[in-house]
Amino acid sequence: MSAPHTDVEQVEAANTAFYEALEQGDFDGVSALWLTPADLGVDETYHDPADVGVVSCVHPGSPVLTGRGEVLRSYALIMASTDYIQFFLTDVHVSVTGDTALVNCTENILSGGPAPEDGEELGPLVGQLVVATNVFRRTSDGWKLWSHHASPVLTENEEADGPEDSEGDENPS
Amino acid sequence: MSAPHTDVEQVEAANTAFYEALEQGDFDGVSALWLTPADLGVDETYHDPADVGVVSCVHPGSPVLTGRGEVLRSYALIMASTDYIQFFLTDVHVSVTGDTALVNCTENILSGGPAPEDGEELGPLVGQLVVATNVFRRTSDGWKLWSHHASPVLTENEEADGPEDSEGDENPS
Repeated sequence: MSAPHTDVEQVEAANTAFYEALEQGDFDGVSALWLTPADLGVDETYHDPADVGVVSCVHPGSPVLTGRGEVLRSYALIMASTDYIQFFLTDVHVSVTGDTALVNCTENILSGGPAPEDGEELGPLVGQLVVATNVFRRTSDGWKLWSHHASPVLTENEEADGPEDSEGDENPS
Repeated sequence: MSAPHTDVEQVEAANTAFYEALEQGDFDGVSALWLTPADLGVDETYHDPADVGVVSCVHPGSPVLTGRGEVLRSYALIMASTDYIQFFLTDVHVSVTGDTALVNCTENILSGGPAPEDGEELGPLVGQLVVATNVFRRTSDGWKLWSHHASPVLTENEEADGPEDSEGDENPS
């Protein structure tokens, strides 16, 4: 494949690289793709009231994580508890405005934890349907993640307020 | 309250205005707060391959909506099915980088649909814990929403794969 030329192609390539690093359990690769204030020329020892370049991350069903420390720790934990993860990306949409790019995509995830017993290769595989909003900033070192927000796409059943009673709902007496 | 001066104060005010417009069922107010490509000087009749200023929105548990048409239609539908909604915002965090602002906040939502029978004022009230990532762009007409992604914060119980059987879980035989 030829090198990406346009902004949109470069952003798509950075977005793909992020998911490939997650698939490979490549913590350094994931870390290198997240923005640092230094990427933007901000002195990290100075407390900036506008929090320029401070990253944030929301994993599916979870609260907000703010700052590189919290965000990267969460990826280390995910990698430690995941033996296999694959992302099939669909519906990738990129909007580039100035030095910021907004990427929306659907993450069709197949993952498995460590095998419950020795001798087995993998724990049970789980499929998940997740949508993501990824915000990238242009830096002299390429496009870097400023924010990742991923959330489950719930089916009608899961959206119900409480656990469904399988008896009686369809045939109210 | 005095007029907001710094970027962070202006972004916080735009974020608050967005939720107040939703609380008031003010469709025009919500519409005015979402970015249009024209706000950025983009001719809307030209198909821009970078989709400059094209908005996106993810409601809790839902797929991605792209473009003003889909996004604003979703707010019209929400307003039509909601008689009462209040947002108590907590943990508001703003990061401004150049002409883009990233806002994370927790939306503690209390809402109610139309009364099921005449004579009652409101349907049952429902509480929801939601986290949001809101991306704003600076325009000559103030900060405007480029992206909104909201997702449920799930408890341990809801994260389980299937509906829980209320009997037998605590006392497995």
